[in-house]
Amino acid sequence: MEFSSDNVFGVHDSILAALSEANAGTARSYSYDEWTAKAQAALNDVFETKVESFLVATGTAANSLGLSSLCAPHQTVLCHVEAHIQTDECGAPEFFTGGAKLTGLSGIGCKLTPTAIRTAIENVVRGEHEQPPGAVSITQATELGTIYSAGETAAIGAAAQELGLNLHLDGSRFANAVAASGATPADLTWKAGVKAMSFGATKNGALALEAVLFFDAHLARDFLFRRKRGGQLLSKGRYLGAQMVAYLKDDLWLRNARHANGLATRLAEELNGVASIRLPVPVQANEVFAILPRSLFAHLTENGVGCHEWLSQSLGPEGPKENECLVRFVTSFRTSAEDVRKLAEICEGMESKRKRAPRAPSPTVSSSS
Amino acid sequence: MEFSSDNVFGVHDSILAALSEANAGTARSYSYDEWTAKAQAALNDVFETKVESFLVATGTAANSLGLSSLCAPHQTVLCHVEAHIQTDECGAPEFFTGGAKLTGLSGIGCKLTPTAIRTAIENVVRGEHEQPPGAVSITQATELGTIYSAGETAAIGAAAQELGLNLHLDGSRFANAVAASGATPADLTWKAGVKAMSFGATKNGALALEAVLFFDAHLARDFLFRRKRGGQLLSKGRYLGAQMVAYLKDDLWLRNARHANGLATRLAEELNGVASIRLPVPVQANEVFAILPRSLFAHLTENGVGCHEWLSQSLGPEGPKENECLVRFVTSFRTSAEDVRKLAEICEGMESKRKRAPRAPSPTVSSSS
Amino acid sequence: MEFSSDNVFGVHDSILAALSEANAGTARSYSYDEWTAKAQAALNDVFETKVESFLVATGTAANSLGLSSLCAPHQTVLCHVEAHIQTDECGAPEFFTGGAKLTGLSGIGCKLTPTAIRTAIENVVRGEHEQPPGAVSITQATELGTIYSAGETAAIGAAAQELGLNLHLDGSRFANAVAASGATPADLTWKAGVKAMSFGATKNGALALEAVLFFDAHLARDFLFRRKRGGQLLSKGRYLGAQMVAYLKDDLWLRNARHANGLATRLAEELNGVASIRLPVPVQANEVFAILPRSLFAHLTENGVGCHEWLSQSLGPEGPKENECLVRFVTSFRTSAEDVRKLAEICEGMESKRKRAPRAPSPTVSSSS
Amino acid sequence: MEFSSDNVFGVHDSILAALSEANAGTARSYSYDEWTAKAQAALNDVFETKVESFLVATGTAANSLGLSSLCAPHQTVLCHVEAHIQTDECGAPEFFTGGAKLTGLSGIGCKLTPTAIRTAIENVVRGEHEQPPGAVSITQATELGTIYSAGETAAIGAAAQELGLNLHLDGSRFANAVAASGATPADLTWKAGVKAMSFGATKNGALALEAVLFFDAHLARDFLFRRKRGGQLLSKGRYLGAQMVAYLKDDLWLRNARHANGLATRLAEELNGVASIRLPVPVQANEVFAILPRSLFAHLTENGVGCHEWLSQSLGPEGPKENECLVRFVTSFRTSAEDVRKLAEICEGMESKRKRAPRAPSPTVSSSS
Repeated sequence: MEFSSDNVFGVHDSILAALSEANAGTARSYSYDEWTAKAQAALNDVFETKVESFLVATGTAANSLGLSSLCAPHQTVLCHVEAHIQTDECGAPEFFTGGAKLTGLSGIGCKLTPTAIRTAIENVVRGEHEQPPGAVSITQATELGTIYSAGETAAIGAAAQELGLNLHLDGSRFANAVAASGATPADLTWKAGVKAMSFGATKNGALALEAVLFFDAHLARDFLFRRKRGGQLLSKGRYLGAQMVAYLKDDLWLRNARHANGLATRLAEELNGVASIRLPVPVQANEVFAILPRSLFAHLTENGVGCHEWLSQSLGPEGPKENECLVRFVTSFRTSAEDVRKLAEICEGMESKRKRAPRAPSPTVSSSS
Repeated sequence: MEFSSDNVFGVHDSILAALSEANAGTARSYSYDEWTAKAQAALNDVFETKVESFLVATGTAANSLGLSSLCAPHQTVLCHVEAHIQTDECGAPEFFTGGAKLTGLSGIGCKLTPTAIRTAIENVVRGEHEQPPGAVSITQATELGTIYSAGETAAIGAAAQELGLNLHLDGSRFANAVAASGATPADLTWKAGVKAMSFGATKNGALALEAVLFFDAHLARDFLFRRKRGGQLLSKGRYLGAQMVAYLKDDLWLRNARHANGLATRLAEELNGVASIRLPVPVQANEVFAILPRSLFAHLTENGVGCHEWLSQSLGPEGPKENECLVRFVTSFRTSAEDVRKLAEICEGMESKRKRAPRAPSPTVSSSS
Repeated sequence: MEFSSDNVFGVHDSILAALSEANAGTARSYSYDEWTAKAQAALNDVFETKVESFLVATGTAANSLGLSSLCAPHQTVLCHVEAHIQTDECGAPEFFTGGAKLTGLSGIGCKLTPTAIRTAIENVVRGEHEQPPGAVSITQATELGTIYSAGETAAIGAAAQELGLNLHLDGSRFANAVAASGATPADLTWKAGVKAMSFGATKNGALALEAVLFFDAHLARDFLFRRKRGGQLLSKGRYLGAQMVAYLKDDLWLRNARHANGLATRLAEELNGVASIRLPVPVQANEVFAILPRSLFAHLTENGVGCHEWLSQSLGPEGPKENECLVRFVTSFRTSAEDVRKLAEICEGMESKRKRAPRAPSPTVSSSS
Repeated sequence: MEFSSDNVFGVHDSILAALSEANAGTARSYSYDEWTAKAQAALNDVFETKVESFLVATGTAANSLGLSSLCAPHQTVLCHVEAHIQTDECGAPEFFTGGAKLTGLSGIGCKLTPTAIRTAIENVVRGEHEQPPGAVSITQATELGTIYSAGETAAIGAAAQELGLNLHLDGSRFANAVAASGATPADLTWKAGVKAMSFGATKNGALALEAVLFFDAHLARDFLFRRKRGGQLLSKGRYLGAQMVAYLKDDLWLRNARHANGLATRLAEELNGVASIRLPVPVQANEVFAILPRSLFAHLTENGVGCHEWLSQSLGPEGPKENECLVRFVTSFRTSAEDVRKLAEICEGMESKRKRAPRAPSPTVSSSS
């Protein structure tokens, strides 16, 4: 029973089928094929504007290449201290930007605020001695499964604009955010001041597919070169294009996200019913962060439930106490309602035995998104 | 009718099927899955030794990441002046190595020799003022479709060893070289002194798959980090593993290469029979480089034959004369004998009309491998 | 009256004289001259061991080049969150290391502890997803003018050794630390596990001179290349050598430092006598950090006292309260006892008028070391 | 007797004196001092326009930082194949630009031509597969001691402008070129289309001083940050400023250059009178390149004449034959007429004995500028 990440699930059947369909005949290489062109058109439709879009194979590459177009090597990217780009990409943003720094800001629920951004700017006073901020990056949905509303995003966008910073959005779970928020993709991005984003598909059913989108064409002017020299120009580009066409067709991306979100909500409700469990942040997308007794976490692990202990300083006053730990459960397009039910049952079962349970040894902390 | 590159053809059916087979259930992400493990075992078998192998999505990434493990930022990589890493990767090797230089050496048929390497070293005399060589990179099959025999490779390997240089092999068409040479993969690599290589699969039937192989485990010690920070760690790694397993199973990789090589040989024979055409370098793998009258090249283009004019300074005395051009024809695992025959017929047909033909305008030069 | 930094003072007369003495005749360029050789010998004497030493022009270059030899691009350097390398070098460490991250740790008095280092290591659990620590860097004297005793340094060195981290020391004010601690240069460095350091001279009387010292020759093996490609190989190297020879001759470096330290101690005593002023961290080297009423700081500025407001999170419970600010006063080899006395008098004079003083507007925060 | 390089000579007395004059009192650090301001004003005067000028310590840093403002990481710099930036800076341009390539073009006398530049551009046809040219860099005086006239520079500037390339000038011996050409600094730079340059002073009498000049302020917008993060922001900046003020005062820079050039011309005349010696390129600045019998070179070396054998492919048909070698003799502001006369006498003396001389073993090749 897997709740460790959405990326342990496979590829949606429609997307696999699309690969086969695209396989007939020859096609121009290096993304000059018709599937890629169709994917770009479909992205324009989804975002209700002309976007400059570039398909790549990984989220780390999408984020890092995108940021390299928004932030100079001598600048810093303001992001949440627990942002994926800061903690989980092994320095790829530093590498692709040519040495820019990432400055981690605090924020409950892994969310930045205009105030946090303004404060960070105010502390920069040393002329050329310090790397000045060049960009802001937010994650949507965040690393704690929360989402920025269109209004919250627009407030950040306005602050960024005023401060001369390019706003970047890491949307590896953007589909889940759109599905959850009720806002349009446009509302959550360019209408709110986002200049470039990673539009993720892999976690939500694709094989290996992310798009780097620019809402300001000028910022994309070097991107073909950046992608190639970054090792992300696939020769058989049609298979990226075909994935994206299938992903967007008939709202597959939103249907997948709604499925995953719905099960996360249900799981949250179930866990909320367990006395020893509490949910420190709202469950808005497809991730449930729960504080469990360590003994329960150990019990889950022993019973083959895939899930990770998580470290976070962004829970506010609600963090784990002694003998507790924070655990992440992720649902995906392929997660079944049955698995959610089973997981809840294990927790409930444990709860009834809980008072007598000896303290279990902690499993090793291990996590990656 | 496509002879412009092997990468315009699609994916071999067995490899597509393998993606579907791998799609059942969940799997650990980030290459800690069982398909990847099987792929690594299969690579060990193919190379008859324990190799450190890492799967990535593009040849540019494979080459650049591999070189970054063999050559320090303050050093230079000796390679052929027309090597793909020098002319077709938009500076990715410079980027991934952190600023190493590539020093292009001359050599007929795009081949390096021990003498060329020794001479390059002898010219390095300026202490810390100059970037000293740290690695040698050869391409197998080369950018002109020639191959290094096991003996030639071993001679280069011995020179590299003596001079303290790490020998790298860009094997984006390694299958074609193995199929053509009759030597074993081991003979052409680690037994000949190769320390690391890019083992290409994409051009020969995979969707997007290259392996970086190290024959010296010490050189691979940082590679997990390099791959991640280089944006090449795919979350759903099982689909890289599954491609490789299928690629190597029952010698599919060699069968595909033999098919392509065989048709290149046949095409060479056909073109050799056309009076106005000559082949300046031997056809050994799956590429035919032919010198044609410009009028014939224009005629081919007009008749929908996909092929590229090519620029090379490595043809020896046999280069194109006025009103001639060098043209590359590439065959693939999916090229048909019929297409080869048709191409030959067009050439032959043109030949008979040739004396009367008015001069055609040159199509634009355009190439990429 | 200048207390803004030790680098606003000029060059010590003996060092200027040494430039003139070195000016006769010709000398081999690029540090292959006899002054450089003498400087290297003198450094060996000072450190009581054979050090690999390289002269450069700036502290930022010394730190960044040194770190680049100790920490791979995919790793991180553990340092204090307010370390100069983290806050005042505009990303030079990231640049010269090829993209390594700096991880800022907390610590009172800008000092790291073995515990802080161990805790940082324990939180690194994500395999290749996170940049693992490769080095630790401490500053001696620290950015808050405190010093590490030989014992404290050795404890950090032991922790670093155990954890496989290279210990680096930013010694831009190393002379002040030696003079203050009573320990030998050897005790504070290689005997305590330091692998490489920046040995500063500019702030303490030289024109432009820092040495990068390696106590482990293996780590220095590429350094000639790193220095050249980093733009720090001066052609007329004899003038760096001559500065260093003069700096070390007859303990000029320690005499200068003792002078500066002595005046800082005196200033601290004077300020301690002013009721509205408190010193949140011990004054151990040549910097006095004092918490003043904002009105007093304004008064100082208006009276031509050069000094900077400082931001620090490392004061423990003793930080500035409302209407107070932290101010840094730096003494140098050229600071006069008279200036210290005058500064104290201004503070005392203000103190007597203090109860009646209207609140002054805050001057802008501005700082650099 | 030293002719090995102009950088083996010391510092001009007026410049040393200026360091002492600048040493009184305190001064703002980091180039915000009055000497730097005066230096900037003097540079404006010399160039008859407002230039953005930044003082640094080495020529390699000046070139590399300047190029980093003119050429993106994914682009290439067109330069002569024997340009100092290509052969003598250990990859610093690649490092500071973040991985740009340098493309070496051929040209007699180490000079580029508009034709060579246009041809290089025409060969770039591969879209994002190849690094497109972003800048052109010429050296004035060149690495073979020749100069570009104002007209030649303007022709290159026009070609660069037309092709969208930024023209950079490595002026480590710019003074010699101005003195030799009779043209004004303005004629040789911004009036001819140069966008940025390194204005060298070290080789011509300064201690360690180069200026990076921008004639287009927009290109300089990030330079303060680039200089700092490149480790080239000296804290005691007044000593750079003071050097520059003295260097430009009363045309010291031109007087020094005229002295050096005059002696080079005289040496050329003397050597031209020796039958076994020939000068393959015109002597225009302060360097004499002469082809000597190897036996004579050995004789010079044995007699304590400092000079380097040189390797060049840019001599046209006039290169060294068997038993000959190319040797570089450099004159400086401090070279004496007597040394020139003595050198000539040794050559003449050898000439008279020459027919009987046994072949001497070759000294090792060694060179740096």
